[in-house]
Amino acid sequence: MKKSKNPITNVEYTIPDNLDDINGINNFVSKNKNKKIIAVQGLGFVGSVMSIVCANSKSKDYAVIGIDLPNESNFWKIASINEGVFPIVAEDKKIEVFFKKTKKNGNFYATYDPYAYSLADIIIVDINLDVEKKLGNDSLLEDFKVNMNPFKSAIKSIGKNCQKNSLILVETTVPPGTCEKVVKPIINEELKKRNLDYRQIKIAHSYERVMPGPNYIDSILNFPRVFSGIDKKSAIAAKVFLKTIINTDEYPLTELHNTNSTEMAKVLENSYRAMNIAFIVEWTRFAEEANVNLFEVIDSIKVRSTHSNMMLPGIGVGGYCLTKDPLLASWSREKIFSSSKLNQSEEAVIINDQMPRYAFEFFKLNFHESLKNKIVLFLGVSYRGDIGDTRYTPVEKMYDFFKNEGAQILLNDPFVSFWDEKNLKVETSLKKSLQKKFDIIVLCTNHSVYKSKKLTRELNKIDRKLYLYDTLGALTKNQIDDLKNNVKTLVLGRGDLIEK
Amino acid sequence: MKKSKNPITNVEYTIPDNLDDINGINNFVSKNKNKKIIAVQGLGFVGSVMSIVCANSKSKDYAVIGIDLPNESNFWKIASINEGVFPIVAEDKKIEVFFKKTKKNGNFYATYDPYAYSLADIIIVDINLDVEKKLGNDSLLEDFKVNMNPFKSAIKSIGKNCQKNSLILVETTVPPGTCEKVVKPIINEELKKRNLDYRQIKIAHSYERVMPGPNYIDSILNFPRVFSGIDKKSAIAAKVFLKTIINTDEYPLTELHNTNSTEMAKVLENSYRAMNIAFIVEWTRFAEEANVNLFEVIDSIKVRSTHSNMMLPGIGVGGYCLTKDPLLASWSREKIFSSSKLNQSEEAVIINDQMPRYAFEFFKLNFHESLKNKIVLFLGVSYRGDIGDTRYTPVEKMYDFFKNEGAQILLNDPFVSFWDEKNLKVETSLKKSLQKKFDIIVLCTNHSVYKSKKLTRELNKIDRKLYLYDTLGALTKNQIDDLKNNVKTLVLGRGDLIEK
Repeated sequence: MKKSKNPITNVEYTIPDNLDDINGINNFVSKNKNKKIIAVQGLGFVGSVMSIVCANSKSKDYAVIGIDLPNESNFWKIASINEGVFPIVAEDKKIEVFFKKTKKNGNFYATYDPYAYSLADIIIVDINLDVEKKLGNDSLLEDFKVNMNPFKSAIKSIGKNCQKNSLILVETTVPPGTCEKVVKPIINEELKKRNLDYRQIKIAHSYERVMPGPNYIDSILNFPRVFSGIDKKSAIAAKVFLKTIINTDEYPLTELHNTNSTEMAKVLENSYRAMNIAFIVEWTRFAEEANVNLFEVIDSIKVRSTHSNMMLPGIGVGGYCLTKDPLLASWSREKIFSSSKLNQSEEAVIINDQMPRYAFEFFKLNFHESLKNKIVLFLGVSYRGDIGDTRYTPVEKMYDFFKNEGAQILLNDPFVSFWDEKNLKVETSLKKSLQKKFDIIVLCTNHSVYKSKKLTRELNKIDRKLYLYDTLGALTKNQIDDLKNNVKTLVLGRGDLIEK
Repeated sequence: MKKSKNPITNVEYTIPDNLDDINGINNFVSKNKNKKIIAVQGLGFVGSVMSIVCANSKSKDYAVIGIDLPNESNFWKIASINEGVFPIVAEDKKIEVFFKKTKKNGNFYATYDPYAYSLADIIIVDINLDVEKKLGNDSLLEDFKVNMNPFKSAIKSIGKNCQKNSLILVETTVPPGTCEKVVKPIINEELKKRNLDYRQIKIAHSYERVMPGPNYIDSILNFPRVFSGIDKKSAIAAKVFLKTIINTDEYPLTELHNTNSTEMAKVLENSYRAMNIAFIVEWTRFAEEANVNLFEVIDSIKVRSTHSNMMLPGIGVGGYCLTKDPLLASWSREKIFSSSKLNQSEEAVIINDQMPRYAFEFFKLNFHESLKNKIVLFLGVSYRGDIGDTRYTPVEKMYDFFKNEGAQILLNDPFVSFWDEKNLKVETSLKKSLQKKFDIIVLCTNHSVYKSKKLTRELNKIDRKLYLYDTLGALTKNQIDDLKNNVKTLVLGRGDLIEK
C-alpha cells in the first residue's frame, strides 16, 4: 500500500487502490446544486489558494473541486483538505479564515478523480510546468529541458472529461504559444473522439501573480489581471468569470490580443526582473574593487522614477518563477517558434545562478582564516524577506559551500521551522540562536527582525571575536555603526567597508 | 589665418594669432569686483548653459568666464558669446532670457586664455570625454578607445593656473576613478612646480544630467544632484556652491562617500538604461514572430511599479550618454582598477548599436519590393522626441541603409532645420513634407506632432499606395485604425500587424 505524508503535520495517508471517486464527487455536487462548479487542477501553492478564493467569491456562486494526482507527493493534499487541514502553512491569516468558511459552507472538496471535470463549468489549470536544469562545474547551467509531458497529460485528462461549453482557464506559467499550439490541439483531439470540437469549448489564459507570504490571498484578489482567449467567446467567458473573483473595480482587467500575448507577458515580466538582478552582479564586484558603497550609489540613482526598478546586490535569486521563466521563454522561442534563443534572458539565469558562489568567494577573499570547524550561524533560509519560502533558495548553495569547507552550521529563520529541501530543522527564535556559540554570522534573508535593534543589542552582549557577513545589505548603517569593535562586518557590494 | 564658423549663423570668425587675453579678462573681472569668479571649462551643450545658469544664480554672487579652445571647432563659441549670440539653438525659451540677462548685467565673458583660471574662485570642468568606437562588419563594435589625453590636457591647464583655495568641480562624465587617479595627480604635479600641493586646492565631482530640449535650464536648476569631494573640505565647498545654484530645497543634494562613488553613479545610471533598452531587442523579434503586439504586452506589465522602467521597442539609441557611458565604465574597471570588463554593459552598447540594422532588416523582410528609386520620407532625424538633437542619432544609420539600396530620401523634423552630421537640410513643416511625392514613410522620432490627427488626416488625402513604417510604436492605435486602405502599416514589435 502506497502512502503519502503531509510534511507539515506528519500524518500519513494511504493511497486507495480504487481510484474512482464518482460517489464522492456526485454527493458534493448534489449538495451544491444551485452553484456553478469550478474544478481547480493542481493543489500546490497557487491552486490550493485559488480554490478557497473561488469558493469565497463575492458572487457566492461557486462550489470548488480541487484535483490533484493520487501519488506520494500529492495525495496527502487531497486527504488533508477533506479532513479540514489546509495543505499550506502561511503567514496570511486570511488563508485560515477562507478555508474555514469553505468547510462551513460545504463548497470545497478535493479529489483525484478526473470525473470531476465532466461536471465543471469552469476548469482552472494551476499545475506546475517545470524546467529541469543540468548544472555543470561550479553549478554553471550547461543545459536545461522543458518537460511538457506532465502538463500535456493534465490537459489530456481535461479533454477526455470536460463538458460542452465549459471554460478552461490556464493560469500556469507556460512557454508562449502553449495555449494555441499545445492546449488547443490536445483538447481538440480528445473532443473529436467524443464527437465534439474545440469551438464548443472555451480556452483562455490569465496568469496569476500569487505571492506566498502575508498577502497571499490579496495577491489573487487585489492584483491587476491580464487575460486572453483563443477566440472572442473564450475571452468574454474569462472576463465574466474573473470579474466575479477579483476586485476588478480597483484592479482592472486588461484583455490582450491573443493567448501568445498573455503567456509572453508573464515570462517577460519575470525575465525583466531576473535580468535587472543579473545586471547588478558585475557592478557589485566593481563597487567592491573601487571602494564604493553600491547601496548608497543605487539609492541616489533610484530617486529618479525612470530608474526606480534598479535592483540591489545580493546572495542570489530564489523562488519558483525568476529561476526558470526566462528559460521557458527562450525555450519557447527556439522550440515552439523555430527561431533563436533569448540569449540575454538565458544569460540572466546563468548569472543569477552564480550569485551564491560569488557571495561565498567574496567572503573567502575577505575572511582570511580556514572555515574548518568554524561554527557559522545562518540568519535566514527563505529566499525572500518576511516570508517562509525555501523553494530554490540561494541559501542552499551557500550552505553547501560552507559545509564543504568543514564549517558547522546553525540555522535560524523566523518563518521556517523545517527546511524541506535540506531535511533540516531550523530555529525560529532569533534570541535562542544568538545564545548559541558561533564564530561567524551569515545574514542570508531580508527578514525585518534581522534589521531591528534586537540583533545589534544581542550581538553587543557577546564578548568574543565575531565575523558578521551580510550577503544582501540588509543591515542598516546605524546597526553597523552600533556594533562593538569585536564584530567585524563585511557586506556584499560595500567596497567602503573592505580593508585593503 | 585660421577661421572658425558658427554653424547656426554661418558667421566666420578669425582665430587670433596672439592668444593672450589678459587685458580682456582683467577688464571683465575689474567690472565685477564684488563678485566671485567662476571659470567654466568647455562651452558645449553643458558648459554654455551651466555658464548662464551660474551667472543668473539666485545668490547673484557670480561673474562667469567661459573658456574653450581657440581652434576651428570651438573658437566661434567664444566669439559668438562675446558678440551676444548664444552658441546653442534650443527650444527652451529660458535660454534666451538667461543669456540676455548676463549681457545686461555684464557678468558673462568668454575667452580662450587659461589665465582666467588664475582669477577663479570656482572652476567647473564641463568638457567632453569621448569614446572612439571601432566598428567592423555590419557596424558591429569591434573595439573602442577612451582617449584621456584631451581631458588630461584640460586638467593640466587648470593645474598650471589655478589659485590657492579654489574649488575645481568636475561635472564631466568620466570613467570611475578619474578624480582620484587622474585629476588629483595631475593637479598635484602642476601645483608642486608652483610650490603648492593638492591639499591647498579643493577637488569635487558632481555630475550633471543636462537634457537639451524644452527643459534645458530646468535640467540643471531643478534636478537632484549627487556630489562628493576628494576630502572633507572639498565636499563641503561643493555643497556650499551647489546650494547657491540648484533649487536644493525641492531637489536635495546627496553626498556620496568618495569621488569614485559619484563617478560610478553617473555611468551606472546610464548603463542601466542602455541595458534595459538592449533587453527588449530580442523580445521585439520574439513578439514579431509570435503575432504579439509587444507595446500592449509591456503596457500591461508596466502597471506594476516594480516594472515601470521597462523600455519599448525602437529604432535605436542615440545621444551623447547612453551610447558611450557603459563603455567608459567597463574601460575604467579594466584599465583603472585592473579588473575584468563589465561584460553586460558592453554588450548592451553592442546590441543597441545594432538596433537600426534590425529595424531596417525588419522593414526589408516585410516590404517585398526593391528600394531602388523609391522615394522615402523620414519623419524625424533627432534621436529623441520633441527635441532637436542629432548627436549619434540612430536615424543616421537608417538613412544610410535606405540610401545604399538606391532609395531617394526626404527629411522632416520640426526641431531640426539642418542635420549637421550629414550636412543636409531638413524640412520642418510636416504639411510641406507630406505634400511631396513619396512611396514610403519611415517614422523615426517620437515627436508629438507625428502622433497627432494631423498626420492621419494628411495621409488620408493621398490616393496612391503608401507604405508607412513606424520604427518605434509612435502611432496610436486610433491613428492606425483611421488610416485608409491604401496605407499599409508596419510597426516594429507589433507582430499582430504582420501578414503571415
